[in-house]
This record gives sequence, C-alpha cells and structure tokens, in this order.
Amino acid sequence: MINDKIKGFFYGADYNPDQWDEEVWREDIRQMKVHGVNVVTLPVFSWAKLQPSEEEFDFSWLDKIVNLLYENGIFINMATPTAAQPAWMSKKYPDITRTDIYGRKRKHGGRVNFCPNSSHYKRLSSTIAEKMAEHYKNNPAIVLWHVNNEYGAYCYCENCRQAFIQWLKNKYITLENLNRCWYTSFWGHTIYDFDEIEVPSALTEILPGALAGRDGTYFQPMAIDYKRFMSNSLLECFNGEVQEIRKYHKETSITTNIWSISHELDLFRWGEQCDVASWDSYPSNKDHPSVIAFRHDVIRGLKKGKPFLLMEQTPSQQNWQAYNAQKRPGVMRLLSYQSIAHGADGIMFFQWRQSLGACEKYHAAMVPHVGHENTRMGKELSKLGKELQYLQDKIIDSRTESKVAIIMDWANWWGVEYSSGPSVDLTYIDRIMKYYKALYDLNIPLDIVEPTSDLSKYEIVIAPLLYMVSDASIENINKFVSRGGTFITTFFSGIVDENDIVRLGGYPGAFKELLGIWVEEVDALYPDMKNGIRVEKQLEENEKTFECKLICEVVHNENAIVLGTFTEDYYKGLPAITENSYGSGKAIYVASEPEDNLIKVLIEKYCGEKNIKPIFKTDAEVEITRRVKENNEYIFILNHSNILQKVSLGKNSYTDLFNGEILENEIEIEPKDVLILKNSG
Amino acid sequence: MINDKIKGFFYGADYNPDQWDEEVWREDIRQMKVHGVNVVTLPVFSWAKLQPSEEEFDFSWLDKIVNLLYENGIFINMATPTAAQPAWMSKKYPDITRTDIYGRKRKHGGRVNFCPNSSHYKRLSSTIAEKMAEHYKNNPAIVLWHVNNEYGAYCYCENCRQAFIQWLKNKYITLENLNRCWYTSFWGHTIYDFDEIEVPSALTEILPGALAGRDGTYFQPMAIDYKRFMSNSLLECFNGEVQEIRKYHKETSITTNIWSISHELDLFRWGEQCDVASWDSYPSNKDHPSVIAFRHDVIRGLKKGKPFLLMEQTPSQQNWQAYNAQKRPGVMRLLSYQSIAHGADGIMFFQWRQSLGACEKYHAAMVPHVGHENTRMGKELSKLGKELQYLQDKIIDSRTESKVAIIMDWANWWGVEYSSGPSVDLTYIDRIMKYYKALYDLNIPLDIVEPTSDLSKYEIVIAPLLYMVSDASIENINKFVSRGGTFITTFFSGIVDENDIVRLGGYPGAFKELLGIWVEEVDALYPDMKNGIRVEKQLEENEKTFECKLICEVVHNENAIVLGTFTEDYYKGLPAITENSYGSGKAIYVASEPEDNLIKVLIEKYCGEKNIKPIFKTDAEVEITRRVKENNEYIFILNHSNILQKVSLGKNSYTDLFNGEILENEIEIEPKDVLILKNSG
Amino acid sequence: MINDKIKGFFYGADYNPDQWDEEVWREDIRQMKVHGVNVVTLPVFSWAKLQPSEEEFDFSWLDKIVNLLYENGIFINMATPTAAQPAWMSKKYPDITRTDIYGRKRKHGGRVNFCPNSSHYKRLSSTIAEKMAEHYKNNPAIVLWHVNNEYGAYCYCENCRQAFIQWLKNKYITLENLNRCWYTSFWGHTIYDFDEIEVPSALTEILPGALAGRDGTYFQPMAIDYKRFMSNSLLECFNGEVQEIRKYHKETSITTNIWSISHELDLFRWGEQCDVASWDSYPSNKDHPSVIAFRHDVIRGLKKGKPFLLMEQTPSQQNWQAYNAQKRPGVMRLLSYQSIAHGADGIMFFQWRQSLGACEKYHAAMVPHVGHENTRMGKELSKLGKELQYLQDKIIDSRTESKVAIIMDWANWWGVEYSSGPSVDLTYIDRIMKYYKALYDLNIPLDIVEPTSDLSKYEIVIAPLLYMVSDASIENINKFVSRGGTFITTFFSGIVDENDIVRLGGYPGAFKELLGIWVEEVDALYPDMKNGIRVEKQLEENEKTFECKLICEVVHNENAIVLGTFTEDYYKGLPAITENSYGSGKAIYVASEPEDNLIKVLIEKYCGEKNIKPIFKTDAEVEITRRVKENNEYIFILNHSNILQKVSLGKNSYTDLFNGEILENEIEIEPKDVLILKNSG
Repeated sequence: MINDKIKGFFYGADYNPDQWDEEVWREDIRQMKVHGVNVVTLPVFSWAKLQPSEEEFDFSWLDKIVNLLYENGIFINMATPTAAQPAWMSKKYPDITRTDIYGRKRKHGGRVNFCPNSSHYKRLSSTIAEKMAEHYKNNPAIVLWHVNNEYGAYCYCENCRQAFIQWLKNKYITLENLNRCWYTSFWGHTIYDFDEIEVPSALTEILPGALAGRDGTYFQPMAIDYKRFMSNSLLECFNGEVQEIRKYHKETSITTNIWSISHELDLFRWGEQCDVASWDSYPSNKDHPSVIAFRHDVIRGLKKGKPFLLMEQTPSQQNWQAYNAQKRPGVMRLLSYQSIAHGADGIMFFQWRQSLGACEKYHAAMVPHVGHENTRMGKELSKLGKELQYLQDKIIDSRTESKVAIIMDWANWWGVEYSSGPSVDLTYIDRIMKYYKALYDLNIPLDIVEPTSDLSKYEIVIAPLLYMVSDASIENINKFVSRGGTFITTFFSGIVDENDIVRLGGYPGAFKELLGIWVEEVDALYPDMKNGIRVEKQLEENEKTFECKLICEVVHNENAIVLGTFTEDYYKGLPAITENSYGSGKAIYVASEPEDNLIKVLIEKYCGEKNIKPIFKTDAEVEITRRVKENNEYIFILNHSNILQKVSLGKNSYTDLFNGEILENEIEIEPKDVLILKNSG
Repeated sequence: MINDKIKGFFYGADYNPDQWDEEVWREDIRQMKVHGVNVVTLPVFSWAKLQPSEEEFDFSWLDKIVNLLYENGIFINMATPTAAQPAWMSKKYPDITRTDIYGRKRKHGGRVNFCPNSSHYKRLSSTIAEKMAEHYKNNPAIVLWHVNNEYGAYCYCENCRQAFIQWLKNKYITLENLNRCWYTSFWGHTIYDFDEIEVPSALTEILPGALAGRDGTYFQPMAIDYKRFMSNSLLECFNGEVQEIRKYHKETSITTNIWSISHELDLFRWGEQCDVASWDSYPSNKDHPSVIAFRHDVIRGLKKGKPFLLMEQTPSQQNWQAYNAQKRPGVMRLLSYQSIAHGADGIMFFQWRQSLGACEKYHAAMVPHVGHENTRMGKELSKLGKELQYLQDKIIDSRTESKVAIIMDWANWWGVEYSSGPSVDLTYIDRIMKYYKALYDLNIPLDIVEPTSDLSKYEIVIAPLLYMVSDASIENINKFVSRGGTFITTFFSGIVDENDIVRLGGYPGAFKELLGIWVEEVDALYPDMKNGIRVEKQLEENEKTFECKLICEVVHNENAIVLGTFTEDYYKGLPAITENSYGSGKAIYVASEPEDNLIKVLIEKYCGEKNIKPIFKTDAEVEITRRVKENNEYIFILNHSNILQKVSLGKNSYTDLFNGEILENEIEIEPKDVLILKNSG
Repeated sequence: MINDKIKGFFYGADYNPDQWDEEVWREDIRQMKVHGVNVVTLPVFSWAKLQPSEEEFDFSWLDKIVNLLYENGIFINMATPTAAQPAWMSKKYPDITRTDIYGRKRKHGGRVNFCPNSSHYKRLSSTIAEKMAEHYKNNPAIVLWHVNNEYGAYCYCENCRQAFIQWLKNKYITLENLNRCWYTSFWGHTIYDFDEIEVPSALTEILPGALAGRDGTYFQPMAIDYKRFMSNSLLECFNGEVQEIRKYHKETSITTNIWSISHELDLFRWGEQCDVASWDSYPSNKDHPSVIAFRHDVIRGLKKGKPFLLMEQTPSQQNWQAYNAQKRPGVMRLLSYQSIAHGADGIMFFQWRQSLGACEKYHAAMVPHVGHENTRMGKELSKLGKELQYLQDKIIDSRTESKVAIIMDWANWWGVEYSSGPSVDLTYIDRIMKYYKALYDLNIPLDIVEPTSDLSKYEIVIAPLLYMVSDASIENINKFVSRGGTFITTFFSGIVDENDIVRLGGYPGAFKELLGIWVEEVDALYPDMKNGIRVEKQLEENEKTFECKLICEVVHNENAIVLGTFTEDYYKGLPAITENSYGSGKAIYVASEPEDNLIKVLIEKYCGEKNIKPIFKTDAEVEITRRVKENNEYIFILNHSNILQKVSLGKNSYTDLFNGEILENEIEIEPKDVLILKNSG
C-alpha cells in the first residue's frame, strides 16, 4: 500500500489550481467526487507563485486548496515545483539555465532547463523542498511526495565539466587508470592533466546524426561515463530534495515521475532511491500494446516487483505527437487496467483540468475545455473511478510471479548505440522487444532485471544484444546457468567490458566459454538483404527455414549443439543457433535476428523444458497477466482487439471480480473490454 | 493609375546599371525600346556605390543613367537601396547585422541582413532615403518610389529584446495583464519584471523541427507577439524611409515589393502603409495556376481591390529552386495576363540584364547572357510589350467585383501553425486553398479579406480553419450573417481568442452560437487514414458518400440542420456538415476536410442560393476572370492547358480586345493563349 | 620504385604499437612474417606519447619498435603524428582547435581538429617533424615519410580570416580587381577595405542545405577562393613539415595519404608537392568497381602516371558506414589487385592490429580481435602476401598507356556545385562517371588530367560538365583539337571563367567557336521528367531513340553536323548531339545526359575512328587493364562477378604470371578471381 490512508487504488490527476480562479475550485471538487478521485498531485509547476523572489515564500493559496481538498476527502501527492525555475531565478543566477550539446547557453524558457551542477539551482531547489516540507509537516492530507518532474535534460556547461572531472577523479583515482579505461592511446588522446578533459558534445565529436545516421562519438567510454555522470548528477538533485523532505516527513513515501523508460537515466539507480516507482505513459495510438506492457514491466522491475504508480497518462488525446488521435472508446479504461495488470496500484492522469493556454492546451484532461463531465471521456472516467472503488483493496499489494526474466542494462543501451559499427540498426530496445513480444504473445509473465540482479528465482533468463558485460555480470550469469538455469542471448553480445573495451580471446568474449562457440565475423546486412535459418528437428518436427536479417555471424561451434544453420552466402551451413550445456544448465546463442515465428519456437521450446506455460493461450491481441497476493490470484484478460474474443479457462473456475459471477470453460470478452478473474481458492 | 505619367500598363524591370559599363547602357536603351519598356526600377542594391562611406554620397553615376533613361522616354521606379547595407557599414556598426533564431550573430554577407531595431540601421537607412529624395526632388522621371526589397528577415538580438519589451509595455501596460494573456501560470513562467522577458528563439524553445515536425513553441502568445512585433519593426523601417521621401515627393506613390504572400509580415498592416501594393511572383513550374491566382487576390486585397503592381517575375528560368525549368513557350505571357486578370496594372521583371556573376546569374532576365533580343524569350517579351502598348489605358484602374470573400488572417496563420496539436498537417494556406480552388474552378470571382473587414458587400464569406478569432471579429461575422450573409467555416475554428487562449463554453467557441452546434472532440487522422461523409438530399439528389481526411470532429447538433454525417469510426452517423439559420443568414460548418468534389458541391449550392454564377463555365484548366470600370467589363480567358479549348459565351456578344473582332456563342482558344473580351455595352 | 630497399610491392599496414604492451610486439612480428609484411606505417597518432609536453620529447619506445621491426626485416613508413595534437596542446594554445562553418569554436576532441593557420600549430607540427627527422637521420629502416593523415578539415576562425585577406592581397593586388572578379557590384557588396572581408560560412551565407538542397552561397568566387585558400593553407602545413624532414632525409620520398579523392583539396596541387601519391580507399560494398577504378586513375594522374601507393584499405569490414558488411571471400584480394592494375606499387591496410577501444574498434585489421591468423581473413591476407612476394619486382614501375583522357578540375567541381541553378542534381563526379564507365566497360585505358595538362599524347579528350574554363584551358584544348584530337564535352560547359564570371557572346562561351553551336537555353528537368534523343545514321545504322534526363539545352547549330535531335517538348527536333570540325580535329557536344547505351555508342564511334580498341572485350563485370614496362606488358583480368567468366584473348598468347602457364584463345576465370597475363614478347 503506497499509503494506508488510501486503502484502494490511487485515482486522480495532476492539478494546477493556480491556473484558475478560486470559484472554479469548488466545481473541481464536485467533479472530482463524480469521478471518484481520491488524490491529486500538486503544485508541480508553481515555483514562481510559491516563491516570487529569493526572500519571499507564499503558501497561502496552496494552503487554501490543500485544505479544501482534504475537507472533501481528497488526498495530496505533494510535488516540489523544481522542474521549472522562475524567470527571476534564471535572471539572477545565469548559471542555472542549461548549455546544450551544441555548446549553446540556453535562455530562460521551457522546463527542465536547469543545470544539475549549478550550485545555485541545487541550493534553491533544496530550499523550496525544505520550506514546503516544513510548512506541511504533519499535514494529514499528504499521502505521497513527488519530487520535480520528468528528470532527464543534460547540461554541457563549464560547471558540469568541473563536476565531471571531480566525478572522474573519484572513479578512476589516477590518470593512468583513466587513460587505460578510455583507451586514449587511440588517436593520441592521452590525458596528462585532469583539467584537459572536455565534456563530450557536438564541439568535441562529430555532429550528432552527421555520420551515417549514428552519433559520431569518438571515445565511447568517455561518452558513456558522461551519461553515468549526468544520470547521477540529476539523481543528486533528487536526493538533495529528498533529504530535506525526510527531515519533516519520516514515514511518507517519496517518488519522482519517470518519463517513459528514460534513455537518459540509469533507472535501476533511480529505483534504489525512490520509495515507490512511478512513471508517465504516453504511447501513441500506433504503439502496440506490448510496447506499453514492456515499459510497465521495466518500471515494476526498478523496485524488484513492488507495485508502482502510473503517475501520468492522458484521458484521451495528446498534443505533442505529430498526429494526436483520440483514444477510441474503451481504450483509456483498457490501458488503465493494463497498468494494474502489470503491477500498478494507482492510475493518475495529466491533468485534472485542461489548460486554456500555452503548449499543452490541446492535451486532454479529466475536465475538458467544455468544463463539464457529460462527455464520452467524462463517462469513461467516472466508470473507471467507480470500478476502482468497487475493487477496494483486493488487488492492492499483489505481485507478479515470473519464472522468466529479460535482462536490460542502461550502460549497455548507451554503449551499443554509441558503437561505430557494425550497423546503425542495432537499436537496443527493438532487439529486446523481439524476445519480449514472443513471451507477451504467449502470455508468459516475466520480469525485467539487471545483469547483476539475483537470478536465483528464475528458470530462464534472456539477454538480447547484451554487448557490454562486466566481470560481475559474467559471474552472475554463469552461476545462474551452472545451477540449472537456461540462458538465451544473441549476436553481438559479450563483446566488451564495462569500459567498452573489447574482451580478448575471440567473440563473444564474456560468454565464449558459457556458449561453447567462437564467433569469427559479425556481418551487417543492408536493410534490403536477408538470410535464412534452417532449423534442426530439435526445434521443429519437420526441418524448416525461417528468414533472418540485420546481423549474421560466422560462428564456429566448439562444444555446443547446433540447432540451426544459415542457408545463404559464404556462411551457408555454419551455425545460426546453438545450445551449450554448462553446469546443470543450458546457454543458447542466436547469431542473427530471426523472424518472430522462430523466436516463438525457441521460447516455447525452452519454456516447455522448464514447464513454464501460458496463463491461458489466446490470440495475439488478447493479453493475459496475473497478480498474486497470499492465496489470492488475480488474472487480467485484456482484449486489445476490435472483435469479440473467446478465451478458454481450462479446468479451473474463477470469479469475475466486477460482478461476482462464476466463470468456467470458455468465456467471451468484448472488444476493448477487461475481465479480472479471481481464483476460487 | 499608379502615376498619370504612364497612362497604360507599367512594363519594365529591375535595372542594375552599376554592374555594367556605360557603353552597355546605350544598348540597354535600344533594347528597352524594342521591348516597349516604359519604366525601370533602380538602384535597388547600390547602397555601397551611392554611399562609399558614412560621409560621402555619390549620385553622379545614377544621375547619368536616370537622365539617359528619361531622355529616351523611360520612367524610373526609384528604389532605396536599403535591403543590403554596405560592408563598411556592417563593420563600423556591428549591431546592424542580424542575430538568427539560433542566437548566432551573423557577419556581413547576403542581403536583408540588418536588424530592424538597430538605431544605426534606422538612422542610416532614413538618411540615404532622404538624400535620394532630396537629390531627385522634382525629377520628372520618377513615377514611383520603391523602398527596400522583400522585407521579412527577423532578428533576435539584445536590441530587439529591449525593443520587444518596450512594445510589450505599450501593448499590455501591466505585468498582470501580460501574465494573463500569455498564460504564464502554465509551467510557473510568471514574469515579475519586464526585463525577465527573453525573445522566443531556439535558445528558449525546443529546436525548430525537433518535435514531430512542429516548431516546439511553449508559449504561443509570446511567439505570436514576437511575430507581430517583428512585422511591425520592419514596417517602422519602411515608414522611416517613407517619411523622408514624403518630405520631397508629396504626390508620388510609394511601395515596397512583397515577397510572395510573406508569412513573416502581417500584410494587411503593410497594405495600409503602402500607396500601391506590389509583389514578386516566383512560382515553380509545378505550382498550379490557382496558387498564383490566390496570391494575386491576396495582394489585391491589401488595398481593398485597388490595382496593384507585379513588381517582379522571371521572364523564364529561376535559379534558386532545386530544378529551374524554363517557362514553356507562351507561359510568360499567360502568367503576365493572369496578373492583369487579377488586378495588376503593371508587369515588371527581375531583371533587365542578366548578371554575369554571383548567385543570381542563372536567373533569367529580359536581356540574357547572349546579349541580344533575338531569342525565344526576347520575342515573347517584345510581343507582350507591344500588346500592352496596344491596350493603352483600357483596362487600367478597372476593378474586380466579387460577391464572395475568403477570410485570411496572419495572426491566425501564426497561431494555428504554432499550435502543439492536434495535427502537424494543419497548415493554414493549404486549408484555404481547398476552398479557393473550388471557386477558382467555377470561375467565380472572390476577394481576400480580414475577419474585421467590411463584409457588407459580400453575399458569401468563407473562413477555412479560422482558429483564432477576436471579439471584434465575432461581432463582425455575426453581423454579416444576421443581415443575410452565408458564412462557411471548418473544423478547429473559433477555438481561441487573439491571445491564443481557448474560449470557454465548448468548441467552436467563437462560433458556437452562430453555428448552432457543439464540438465535443477534435480527432486527428494519421496520414494513412480516412473517413467518409454521407451527404443528405439537400446537397446531392442521390445520397452519396465522399472521402474526408485530416481532422474529424465529434459534433453534436444543437439548432442546425445536418447535411452530412460521418460513415466510419466511433463518430459514425454524427454530423460532419451542418447548416444553421442565424438572423437572416446561414452559417455552415464542415467538420472535416472533404475531397474536392464535395467542397465544390457545397460552393455550388450556396452560390446558387445567392444567384452567384460562374463568369463562364469551363474545364478546370481554363481560368476566367473579370475586371470592371464604369460600364466597361473586361473578361479574361486564360488557357493554362496544353490543348485547344472551347468556351461557350452564352447569350452575349463581346469584342476581342486584341483585334476588335466580335465574339459570340462558342469560341476556341489555343494552348497557353489569352483572350480579353470586352462587353459590347 | 618507391624505395629501392623494397624491390617488390610494399605490403603492410598502419601500426599502432603504443596501444599494446611490448609482449604483444613479438607476436606482431611473428604474424607480420606469416603474412609477408615488409613495411609498416607508424606512429601516425602518437604525438601525445612522443611529446608529453612542449619541452619533453620521448622517442625511446619508438626506437625500440623501430629497431625490432628492422631487425626482423620490416621497413618503416615513418609518419609524423600531426593529424591529432595532444590535449595539453589544445589547452595551452586555444587557437589550435578549429572553428567550424557554423562559427563554433571546437574543443579538444577527435582528429584533424587543428586550424591550418594557427601559428602555434604550424610551429609545433614543424618542430615534431624536425625532431623525428633528426632523431631518425640515417636510420636504415625508413623507406618512406608519411606526413599527417587525411588532410581536409577546414577552419573559419579569425586567424584564417586574416590569412585569407593576406592571400587575397597577394592574388588580386588591388581592391578594384577583387571587386571585379568577385562581382561585388551585385547586391552592393563592394569592398572598400580588405579588412571588411569575412570568410564565407553559415554566418555570412544561407545555411548549408537550407535552400532546395543546395549550399546557399551568394558569392561563388569568394567561396571558391576560400576553398583554394584552405586547400593551400593545408598544403602549407604539409610543406612546412616536408621542409624539416628534407633537412635530414635528402633521398627518401615523402607522401601524405589522401582520403579518397578529397573534395576539399585541389589534389593536382598536392600531387606536385608529394614525391609519391598515396591514398586511402574505403568503398562500400554497394559501390560499383568502376567507382574504385576511377579513384585509382585520379590518384595515378596526380603524378602524371607514376606508380602510387594504396596507403589504406580495410582487410574486410569498415565501422563508420551505416551498414558495415564483411568483404566477401576473395574480394579483398580482388580489390588489392585492382589497385595494382590501375598503377599501385604497394598495398597497405588500416590497420595492423585491431584496436580494443574507441571509435574504430570494429574496423577490421590484419590481426583481428581474436588475435591469431587462423581466420578466413588471415588466410586471404597470407595468400596475397605470398603472391606479391612471388611477383617480385616484375610489375613494379610499369605504367598505364592511354590514348584517352578525361578532364577533371577541382575549381570546376567547386564552381559547378556552388552554382545556384539550373539544377541541384548537377553533381560533378556523377557526370564524369557516366563517361568513365563507358570506357571502363569497354576496357579502354584512360588517364585523368587537368584542363591545362599536356594533351599531346592523347587522341581523345573528354570533359564532362566542364563548366568553369580559364583562358589558358581554352587555348590548350583548342590546340589539342586543331592538331587532330577529338574533344567531347557536355551541357553546361564552357560557361564561366575561373572567377565564375559568365563568358559573354552566348553559351557555351569558352567552347562556342570550337563546337560551332550556340546554346540559347539550359532547361533543367525535374527528376520525374525525361526526353529522348533520336540519333542519325552516323551513330547507329538504324535510326534509334535513346532516353535522356537532367538537362536539355536549346541548341542552334552554326557550323557543326547534327548527330542527334530531341524528340519531345518545345525543343523537339533541335540538336542534342553535334560534331564540329576544328583544325584537323573534331569537337563533339552532348546537350543532355543520355542513357548509358548512347554514351557507349559515342565512345565506340570516336575511339573507332582513332583505332582505339578494348584490351579485350568482356562482359561488364570483368575488368581489364594493362601496365607496360619497356617491352613487358602486364594484362590484368579481374572478375568482379559471382559467376565463372570466359575471356577471349585473340591471336596472341600470354604467360600466366602466377603459375607460368601459357594462355591462348579463350580462358576461364573464377568468380572474384584475378589473372595477370604477361605478353610473350
């Protein structure tokens, strides 16, 4: 339970009362009750109003609305307003605004426009957090603290350079060590004095995008370190505020809302610092539901499976995409339950009342411009609110139980996408999604973990394109396999250590022994090229050929079993899929990117060996997940399709959580509808 | 008549004699006479030659050529050379060169490279204008003054910031007012001191183009104000020169040549300051003739129908397009008459003699590089010159008479294209062109007007995508309809006020009462999507379905008649076209972008009701327009097609203005040919 | 012979021993011997290691490896390390790092990041060159000096501006002259003081790419002069180092490795300063072999046919392309022999041992990451090494003998691609390749020459798109034709002089008399347009029509014979191909870009007239070249196809150089295989 003042689901929105006259506030309260809202987030962007100058603080208007909400049974997710500093502050302390990757000092404007290494910003953001925390000490309305908003913008200023150098001194201690880890002997870039170090930017590298669609980074270890440093600099800003809040609020959880699965932040590190993970989900109408499911699973993984909070989604339309379609009828509810199905204990929206001006005014809100609730969207929101109230605390605190894990690693993401060669199409998340989607389609639950996570609870661990692997990760994975686990990895994995230095002894370096193979060549295919993989009977009864693309490797089998071979080109007949026994487990290598059908065959085979089965078998467009609490099991059936679907429940009978009916055998589910089944136990 | 020294059409070109030795000048005069040139524009880009340093002025060479021209019966459109300051000036006064939207101070180079808020530039440009005006006081050769050239380049420097702040103080008086109109409560951007304001640029906003194809503007009212301010800053430069010229030239008209229908300048404001409107027309060979026709109509509208001057077109080839095709035989003449057909009283070219160097040397000129007139182009130019002489003053001062008007508004253009959401494809001019082209194809004359223009002379007013509407505009349009007019508007209209603040009470805000509908949702379609509109018998005898795209709105009819409904998606069956009675008139709403055929059906229906008929009915590629002077009516028949066309003249008989023949019944017109018919009256 | 210490082919690689521990060096030596390596280039990027501070020089580690190599029979191509200055140097002398075309001062990073007009850089680069030259005076291991690496990056800083002004003063002497040659009367850009001149950059011009895909250069002569100046500034850096090396190494050749056929450097000027031409060849797998052949011929032309050195190629994979495919089996050997077939006397690779870190770590090397030679690539490298040893000095110093030349000119390249109009598709090299490929397909040897080269040894000279022509070039070409030569040129040629000033008197200006035609109009076709050329019996027995695209000119025949006419549009029936007699020779004009078949017809006709025949006739994918030394003739047969090919040898018999077999009549050649035939004489 995020906070035991709210026994059921959090349901609410970002609320910006400072954009409205007080007379509107009473109408807000009325409609909140109509929709069943029990919590609102505020005041996310009110720094200028709370602190009109360095010396003045004014909480009076905030007190009014906080009291009004609390009197009406609505709790507060209290937000620090530090994502957008006031204009007076940018003017008074010019070092606060960011310097961009092109070396341009930004002027006041927008948001997340602060340098995380500005001492002024750090002092002032901690101060406002402390003032708020002190002012609202013991305030019973507060159920959660929300720091800043969607951290993630980098800075490249001189202050950041100085802080980077200090960070590097702490990390590498000596220049000898730094020069070795950065491989500065290349192109004679030896650093003889820490102060010679520049931050990697468009002024030191080739312009982003200039080089065959790839960032023209020369020294990947330096660039990756800058990302580590920046993620950490921002995390220090977060921690600076947390420390002040904690002085006055010992028990209340503190979070920050992550934007999607931020590429800029090493989210596992952020997960360690947040009490509750929360995130903002803004898929386009063209995104497949599995993409959203994946992001939920990533966020749930940040706190090792602890329920999270969906902090923002739109009730219908977004505004910043190229084409901002309305969410079709039922879709807002469907996606809300998808969040819960993947571990959310709360559903919140951006925002409560639609703004009349500025750049987000065409972003939908719970109260649209017309101002009343008698709209399609309004009805859907009220229905959802009532359902969540009806569910009470039944699902709250339940957990996903998975036997399968997929490895995700931010440094690997950065490293593989900074890599110059072999192919610009080696995007990390797309590679993960190939394997994620196979499991998703099979309705097999999975967790997202780090390479160094405790893997002992899993039977199968999949690591697509795990290019960068530390010694600790090797040890962890080897231990997992040797104790009986099944490990699956792909082409261009195990190549480098955590400094992006190639591991000697032949590819796939880190995994060579584990996989029992040697990869001689990594061939990049042009987008118009393909090859084939002919699979052996171990995989398909009748030998069969599947297409593959992107990368084909020249693999030499050493100790493994060959399960598939290439059908074309000079590596025709050489291994494309291998399986190696290692200790009590198995390690599988896939040396190309096969079509989805073959990945499904692989997943089914290895899940089958471990007796891991779909919750229920369904068509691709019906998603099934499960949450478990003590003996209670909640099965979510989500029909993402536009047609009526049937699902066979097997031998067990279940209770429909929405109406108490007993469900058995085959059930039907309407387009875009959701069912939550409770086990009979 | 632009100037009664020239009784007929202006015919000539930009002339740059300073690029040529004086011996060439005599040859120029000879060829001018061959072509029938009666006016040349000069010295557009000779500031450096006229003023070699701040203290020196040298008009001697200019006097020579002015006298030579005048002695040979060629008049002067006297141009101030202020579009390109001399290199010495950029060096002496570094504040003159512009700072671009990326915050980069430009160096000397190119043209329109001046900051309109540089006090040095303003002083020096006024000075040279005054010196010229004084020097040529009473000079009988001058028939027009031409200030600067193609204004439109913006600046973002500190001087501009200071001037912007002053402009804002004048406009908003108080910060409270500014904060409210700019909606700065959003993201905590409250301004506590005018000096906190930065000019909106790539340093305050998201980089242009970075965000889903759309300018990433955060505060639209600020960005729109900057456009208003910049358009006005440039207009003040113009006025500064005008004021000096006026001291010595009380009677002569003053103009500046507008580049196309400049997006950067609020042209209606410029029209108020110019004595004659003039513009530069540079279509590509791929542009449809209706696009050029539209631009002519816009320019004619700037002076409420007063004849304008086509100041520049190319005799054949341009140089700055990607592919610079020659104008096909007859096309230069055809497009020249199209200008006249839309209200021009003069046809001028860029330029007289083709330059031998620099970036425009492959732009065609009346005298090509080969140097003589015995070319295809030379013959076409001479023929046109002779025809214009033959026409004498017949057409001069005649006017277009229209019963239909289309509304165009620059602030709306800026506002709708700055909008973040609902769709990046909501480009304003393209939306206008859908309706313009329907009228064009029907040969129904129309005027381009502002929302606040006097609409009393029109029967039908069309306002495509009129997103931003002031209170005064609402009142004006409501009055027009209540007195019996027919008003047609489209999706996403009436949404915001002039500060880009959403109008409360439900879409379409400004027009909700007028249209008798409520728009609940604005759905943006992806480019690969479409819907259908099934129209009622009022529109088509047999019910019929037309395609529509781009935007589909969820419309609730309140008081209107439904003329068409959507055929697909969750708003199937809901209104797509409505007609509402209001006072003595009607207001029609089109809630999507239908295919051209349906727009034509709508235009025919509502024109039919008002008894507004085509001048003649023709195939789409034959354009018909009419100019009227007292009892004289001139009908222009322009065959843009590559085939012989027939046109039925109905019951009246006409005189062919080129040869005096009487034309009756059906006539034939050759490909690319032009006929001018005079009524028999 | 590049150096008579190596009697046969140079065979080796760039070697970066400073990236490796000394224990690796012994293994390097072992593998060098396995592969037959006889020379390595070093220390290309070791400035920071050789000179840790301004006062310290450390050659001890270099001495060790130089001695070790020499003791093992491996010679040294001694490289100055000046392409990448040390970080301490960038910090100590901030003027060294470049300012880019956007006016942004770069920070330390990457390579070729020096300003060629930095006095500090010039002094320090000369100093290190001198120190090395002195230190290795009389060192017997050195067979060649290699200065810097892939020169070509431009700078736009204030130092460069000052140096540019000085260069301009030397070139133009007076401002009057400069103003005339730059055509500054256009747009009033008259320069009254040299110090008013700015360097042409994005701050003076329109942003590159902003204008219809074309660089928005206003004053082409200024922009071309800046390229001349920058090419020369870089050449002065080269010469500065050469001068120091020459003090101590009187006999050893000095070179620098050119990147491809650098657009940025006027390579003919560089050829004059290098003792041996050398270059780096990095085709993509998608490049046609003729593209590589062309580049070889360009490089050979720099020293008027003297054998050159292939300084860098990759053994297999590159890393910086979008898709870095492996070279297929046999292709590395095939392309190596293609180099020799076009005049190389040495084959070298980048690099010896594959780096473990930084941005080139996935660029293949002779020793791959796995570290041993038992790989496909290793075997191919050893085979090639052994073959080259087997060939001894047989082919060394032999020359290509050509009767055909194609003109290439850097100023023309710059001029025509800076041109605003008529078409953005007028890319120079693509136009040359149309004619080059026709000769390549016919196996007719050719040389690449300058317009002012001695043409007396050629029978046919082809000058595609020779837009910019000096008076000296006109005279040279006219003399060539009048003495009996055949000259072929195309549309948009002869238009301007060396200052990009249009030549008066009608197009094609420079060549009007020579060609006996007048071009009235240059029409640019949109990419989706085409025309046809109907050819007369002189060209094809049966009259036939070929397609043409890009440009079609309106040509008036004056004294020539018309060989082809356009079939469409308003110039239907007008000349498309003409032939004019001039003195004892002929001048042919092609007024459009015909399909390849027609160019082949033209080449065959005019080669036939001069009795110039294919070495052997083959399918397009079998390339034939010949090198000649005294009475020895070496014919190279290169099968670029994937199938077995047959080649008819005619009446002569030959010796297979690899195995001594006698070859007669028809022979077979395997896919990707190479044969070298020696004449029996």
